[in-house]
Amino acid sequence: MKIEIAKGVRDIPPEEKILKAKIVSTIQNIFEVYGFNPLDTPTIERYDVLSSKYAGGAEILKETFRLNDQGERDLCLRYDLTVPLARFVAMNPTLKMPFKRYQIGQVFRDGPIKLGRYREFTQCDVDVVGNKEVIAEAELLSIASRAFKELNQNVTIKVNNRKVLDAIMAKANIPEEKRLDSILSLDKIEKIGQKAVTNELETIGLDEDMINTLFTLTTRDETNEKTIKELTLELGEDAMQEIKELFRLLDIMGVDAEFWPNLSRGLSYYTGTVFEVFANDSTVKTSIAAGGRYDKMIGNFVGNNQEYPAVGISFGIDVIFEVLKLKKETLEKSVVKVLVISIKMDTESISLITELRNNNIPSDLNLKKGVSKGLEYAAHYNIPFVVFVGENEVRDGKYKLRNMITGVELLVEKTQIVELLQSKAN
Amino acid sequence: MKIEIAKGVRDIPPEEKILKAKIVSTIQNIFEVYGFNPLDTPTIERYDVLSSKYAGGAEILKETFRLNDQGERDLCLRYDLTVPLARFVAMNPTLKMPFKRYQIGQVFRDGPIKLGRYREFTQCDVDVVGNKEVIAEAELLSIASRAFKELNQNVTIKVNNRKVLDAIMAKANIPEEKRLDSILSLDKIEKIGQKAVTNELETIGLDEDMINTLFTLTTRDETNEKTIKELTLELGEDAMQEIKELFRLLDIMGVDAEFWPNLSRGLSYYTGTVFEVFANDSTVKTSIAAGGRYDKMIGNFVGNNQEYPAVGISFGIDVIFEVLKLKKETLEKSVVKVLVISIKMDTESISLITELRNNNIPSDLNLKKGVSKGLEYAAHYNIPFVVFVGENEVRDGKYKLRNMITGVELLVEKTQIVELLQSKAN
Repeated sequence: MKIEIAKGVRDIPPEEKILKAKIVSTIQNIFEVYGFNPLDTPTIERYDVLSSKYAGGAEILKETFRLNDQGERDLCLRYDLTVPLARFVAMNPTLKMPFKRYQIGQVFRDGPIKLGRYREFTQCDVDVVGNKEVIAEAELLSIASRAFKELNQNVTIKVNNRKVLDAIMAKANIPEEKRLDSILSLDKIEKIGQKAVTNELETIGLDEDMINTLFTLTTRDETNEKTIKELTLELGEDAMQEIKELFRLLDIMGVDAEFWPNLSRGLSYYTGTVFEVFANDSTVKTSIAAGGRYDKMIGNFVGNNQEYPAVGISFGIDVIFEVLKLKKETLEKSVVKVLVISIKMDTESISLITELRNNNIPSDLNLKKGVSKGLEYAAHYNIPFVVFVGENEVRDGKYKLRNMITGVELLVEKTQIVELLQSKAN
Repeated sequence: MKIEIAKGVRDIPPEEKILKAKIVSTIQNIFEVYGFNPLDTPTIERYDVLSSKYAGGAEILKETFRLNDQGERDLCLRYDLTVPLARFVAMNPTLKMPFKRYQIGQVFRDGPIKLGRYREFTQCDVDVVGNKEVIAEAELLSIASRAFKELNQNVTIKVNNRKVLDAIMAKANIPEEKRLDSILSLDKIEKIGQKAVTNELETIGLDEDMINTLFTLTTRDETNEKTIKELTLELGEDAMQEIKELFRLLDIMGVDAEFWPNLSRGLSYYTGTVFEVFANDSTVKTSIAAGGRYDKMIGNFVGNNQEYPAVGISFGIDVIFEVLKLKKETLEKSVVKVLVISIKMDTESISLITELRNNNIPSDLNLKKGVSKGLEYAAHYNIPFVVFVGENEVRDGKYKLRNMITGVELLVEKTQIVELLQSKAN
């Protein structure tokens, strides 16, 4: 047997997992501060549920991992966290609305392997079910804004509304059957340029007038205010009401976002606000978080004639990881802040490290391996401090603390060592 | 289509996930304080790796979920986190030893469904690879001891060593081929009683002398000291050296554990120390954490003639959850500490909640739905505080804060509300 990992999946070694865990815990804390509760659903779902008419659609179904049937079962691995949410809502009819939940977990898509695309990845979703008001999307965008601030990543949050796009399509006299394709094409203008989009729109069958009108109406003006004002003149108050209210709320909350009337997001199930978050000053050009309002999907899925208005945002943990990793010169290789090196003073070393750990200082121990092995270990893992515990130290009650970055050594009283390391280790 | 969950798996709704997440984060923090770094491996592994000779064995392989082959692949879902660790070590020959890692993730076993047994569950493992010294197991037991203290669960930590068991088998003249079965039978004495074990040992083919000797040697005396002393007289220093050293280290670390010479743990790959942790005062009788030293397994698996001594402990997150849930009268239904109810003062309510959230107070917002709906929502989710924001409150700059448990209401200055809620919310 050759010892190999499966194709298209990967290990996350400690130096990467430390950063990834930091991203996840930062975002997760903010979810809870905003009043969202955690939910888990299983990795394994029934294939008939994930392949139902109102679930993810044919494209995604082609990429669904299915399990070997044993007996009557037809099981598969979840490809997202939205369909499981819909299933959970359907199976729990007494849920108190609005139901605000977040979920972080692995999802699976058996697609072609490309650079940075894996068959197993981490999804991190936060959704409100049962609230029609635009305040719900304002809260989600406020979460995104704060999350990237805490992660020290400058971002641009782009916002639009499917109702604005629909009104634009109507205003430009685009025939019903050509609207979805036109919307998807206009979405790509920043990526492929106006000329390529013009070609696409011509191929779809739009005439010059239509195309010109579309470009005029979907072009963002310098500011949100100007863009909103001009489009209100063209499209009327009704089409613009939600987007206006959203920007009013974002203003109260202190959230910076930009109105981009050409933004659509691919998925056809969005019914209102859509948004995407992009990393500024990064070579990563794909969105790092995205979402929108999907007021019909859960209701259609549940099929009980009740309404389940919903809005959600998904954080691309793996792509956020790539963005932050590219910014760093080195990754943290260990959580350990101090290595205790025993110089034939094992009992005292264990006493000391027990005290450090009782004070929540991440620490590790080097017994019986000698000073040079210990220093080598500390250097390899970039452990910032080393304490030596030898005969002299024990006799005098003073430990030698070496700063592994500066090389500076201090003699520290036993009683002060915890305090000193607590202040230095942060 | 009937909307159903797959058999043998389950949703973890918020009121359960809040407790489960608390268990995981408590244990995880302690892992890091003890110098262990996080690792992730994929859910999907190659079947030839998981079915290799030195991996989990035939029993577990029968319960392995396999994926539908598409093309040449033979993939499956991991059944534990130990074989993936061995694979990771094999594929990363430059890893600096000792390699101390923890991993928390879902594992899958397609076994019969029993009460409290699921086909997907959370494994939480911490292992040291590359350290032969007993200090490694002492650290793991110290982690267990501290974890359950922090989770307010009294536990008994039982410890033994396979070398002690081997010496006992030799001393009792048990034939080689009957030793493993005898060891497994003696392990059950607390569960099924001495009489049933006697029957089993007779069935294995031991005579009365052998059985009496085994009972004498594997019976724990009142204290560790007495048990160690007596067994040392019977078995000699060599067999007892590791267990003596372990209890010496545990003593320095302040860890309470009990030496039980009949304890074995099922798995045949253990080579030295074995341990199991049991919840005191609980109806749950199975172990809630367990592990041991397995010095040969990774080396055999890697097959490169290098030694990879290893020791690990696995925390049974789902069974710990059951133990803690049984102790609680009610589960926390929401992470939210305060609900802001707007009485036609939406802008001011949003300003207030933005401030609360900026100060990390988990809070939720009730706009446009009216006071009684808001109170009903707060009561449903056991949200402990409600703030009313109405015309009077805004004019006077004082908010009415209601304690939902006592019903007591306070008028609080806007500037003090954060401080007050921060102190009350903890």
